[in-house]
Amino acid sequence: MGAFIVLEGGEGAGKSTAVTVIREYLISKGVPPEDILETREPGGTEIAEKIRTILKEKNPREQLTSESELLLMYAARSQLVNCVIKPSVSQGKFVIGDRHDLSTVAYQGAGRGIPLDKIAAIRDLAIGSLTPDLTIVMDIEPEAGMRRARKRGDLDRFEVENIDFFHRIRNCFLEEAGKHPDRIKVVDAGQDLEHVKQDIIKTLENSGICSAG
Amino acid sequence: MGAFIVLEGGEGAGKSTAVTVIREYLISKGVPPEDILETREPGGTEIAEKIRTILKEKNPREQLTSESELLLMYAARSQLVNCVIKPSVSQGKFVIGDRHDLSTVAYQGAGRGIPLDKIAAIRDLAIGSLTPDLTIVMDIEPEAGMRRARKRGDLDRFEVENIDFFHRIRNCFLEEAGKHPDRIKVVDAGQDLEHVKQDIIKTLENSGICSAG
Repeated sequence: MGAFIVLEGGEGAGKSTAVTVIREYLISKGVPPEDILETREPGGTEIAEKIRTILKEKNPREQLTSESELLLMYAARSQLVNCVIKPSVSQGKFVIGDRHDLSTVAYQGAGRGIPLDKIAAIRDLAIGSLTPDLTIVMDIEPEAGMRRARKRGDLDRFEVENIDFFHRIRNCFLEEAGKHPDRIKVVDAGQDLEHVKQDIIKTLENSGICSAG
Repeated sequence: MGAFIVLEGGEGAGKSTAVTVIREYLISKGVPPEDILETREPGGTEIAEKIRTILKEKNPREQLTSESELLLMYAARSQLVNCVIKPSVSQGKFVIGDRHDLSTVAYQGAGRGIPLDKIAAIRDLAIGSLTPDLTIVMDIEPEAGMRRARKRGDLDRFEVENIDFFHRIRNCFLEEAGKHPDRIKVVDAGQDLEHVKQDIIKTLENSGICSAG
């Protein structure tokens, strides 16, 4: 029992909706609500949320370097993994993560151009060998995703990047899913909501998570 | 012209006093005051100072992991090096740093026990090959340094560590100075103030920094 399930994807892909679908699925399988935790990255602990603020805010006077961005991401993740994810899963709880490590590969790797071996070395230091039991990539055309994100309101420091940046990120998510088909699944988030929900539930059923529930 | 001069050492070693001595020395050699910058680490830019706050504050509800501490240090350093140190030195300015990379080797390496090769990999990503022109280690017995630091007031998250931690740090500073005698010099900070000042000035004279001044 206990699992770490992660939602990934570009802006406006409907990750928050997907978190709710997963929560409801787990409850329908008999998991007590108090055994389901939701986390978001960067963030999810008191210290990590302070780091998130630095990462998200637009500062017209000082540009955050790509390297600093990467290091801050992993500083926040080290806190979240050690204070929340590892202890919770080892107590048999279910953690649903709104973004995790794959976002760093996509955004700081494919997006910013930091070599993947350098990212891997820092991951290794920050979080060791932790791998989510299941990662669901909510896949959407960047143009359509950005239209949705814009409707939500003010765009943060990442959301104001140009469309090429988001195409590189999308391609990276799909490539990584192709490399690890056993643990990274893709859901077409461009469909109508009902079909998206059905696909998420199908993915969860096939994963075997909660099969004993 | 232009140089990056760094003060290192344990708590209460008199680094701030040393910064003033170096500033006065440079001015006596004809460097215009507007060409002398003082930085402190972690910190020294708007973003880096926000990271400093996270690093220094004691949080009874959440422990900062050693790995997160290391990553935050380098995130702050990446900002400072790219936004301040490199552009200033390349314009012929003098930057006097209150702590820099050697503190990370001492505190997070010898102090916290993070392997030095892992620290080196992150340094490489965060700041590349930048090396200070001169590093002065203000050396003092940890017990004596802590007595001074305590007099200054409230101790931060580092200053409340036990005395063994500070002995490991002191030994590391001295070992690194032994390995790089050309660019890391040790000043006995336990002497009376006048002798400390004289030793700093002697070290600057011998370094050749500002010899053309």
